[in-house]
Amino acid sequence: MIFYDCATAPSPRRARIFLAEKKVAHDVVEIDFSKQEQLGDDFKAINPNCTVPVLKLDDGTTFTENLGIAAYLEAQYPEPPLMGRTAEEKGHILNWNAIIEFQGLIAVAEALRNSNPMMQGRAITGPQNYDQIPELAARGVKRIGYFFDMLNAQLKGRDFIVTDDFSLADITALVVVDFARIIKQSPNDNHAEILRWREQLNERPSVNV
Amino acid sequence: MIFYDCATAPSPRRARIFLAEKKVAHDVVEIDFSKQEQLGDDFKAINPNCTVPVLKLDDGTTFTENLGIAAYLEAQYPEPPLMGRTAEEKGHILNWNAIIEFQGLIAVAEALRNSNPMMQGRAITGPQNYDQIPELAARGVKRIGYFFDMLNAQLKGRDFIVTDDFSLADITALVVVDFARIIKQSPNDNHAEILRWREQLNERPSVNV
Repeated sequence: MIFYDCATAPSPRRARIFLAEKKVAHDVVEIDFSKQEQLGDDFKAINPNCTVPVLKLDDGTTFTENLGIAAYLEAQYPEPPLMGRTAEEKGHILNWNAIIEFQGLIAVAEALRNSNPMMQGRAITGPQNYDQIPELAARGVKRIGYFFDMLNAQLKGRDFIVTDDFSLADITALVVVDFARIIKQSPNDNHAEILRWREQLNERPSVNV
Repeated sequence: MIFYDCATAPSPRRARIFLAEKKVAHDVVEIDFSKQEQLGDDFKAINPNCTVPVLKLDDGTTFTENLGIAAYLEAQYPEPPLMGRTAEEKGHILNWNAIIEFQGLIAVAEALRNSNPMMQGRAITGPQNYDQIPELAARGVKRIGYFFDMLNAQLKGRDFIVTDDFSLADITALVVVDFARIIKQSPNDNHAEILRWREQLNERPSVNV
């Protein structure tokens, strides 16, 4: 299988960590955002929505969204489970993943894409161009503070966000926490639980792939 | 189990249809948005994020996001499968669900919440208040047109969006198409495939619960 990646972007990092945890052999094709390769005709033939990550199987089947890639890999390569063993765990992990995406990932992405001069006209990923909305950038910065407070509260007394094991929810959250640096937001002295959890995660080889 | 619902809102409708397809017995508690019950202390004790749907199991376990509810129900009540049988199907269904949420559901929600006078200060769900951003409303209307074009293309020659069976992706998309009426957007003469698919779905009792 081929993994279409971009070393500098947060979304493909989620799938990259997931693949590394599963230890699934794959080839990597790097898509260079600085050359806008994601908007070129060659890549549009692979993903008309112009986003990475993309996972392309040997038979040509493609998955173009993190949850699609994760659901395929989890079913095809069950060990180690990253999306839960029991019905309750499966529910809680996708529940937390949704919360982290909506309250964390989208907040940082909106803050960045609506303020960075390099992203003028590119406020949303995809083939269409949308103007930046400065209020949306300010709102994103505000929201990420609430997200850190919420995540910190959840991590009290826990090694991982949902279960006793590392899961998809931890992957999404750690990518959000690291990605937030680009908008100059980081966990502070009020977020000791996040700092402890993030430090522990560095022991996992997948996190530094 | 108890299902916390709101008859007039799109998000709980997704879980309501999922429950009806699974034929899982449950009690219903209606949360009245017109009285802002979702923001009251009683409901905050159930879901601090102040959103519906919520599914509360008999042991007190709660799921507060559509994907959390769906993942739990799919694992606990496997028939009929709504999230795929094979690894490929599971991947494609969550892949499409993510596309439909991001390109469709969020677009309509942003158009509505950033323009409706009743939603001033409530541009995002949740316990915090955020001002409306008029540009975001206009952007949402524009995006939903692209979403209809994309969905129409996918439905050519298909009874359902992903596989030969009704799935979570169909649930999310039909809720988006119906919800879009509130911002006066509907499939038009260019979207015959959507109109055909939507008409066929009316034969399913779950859609009209």
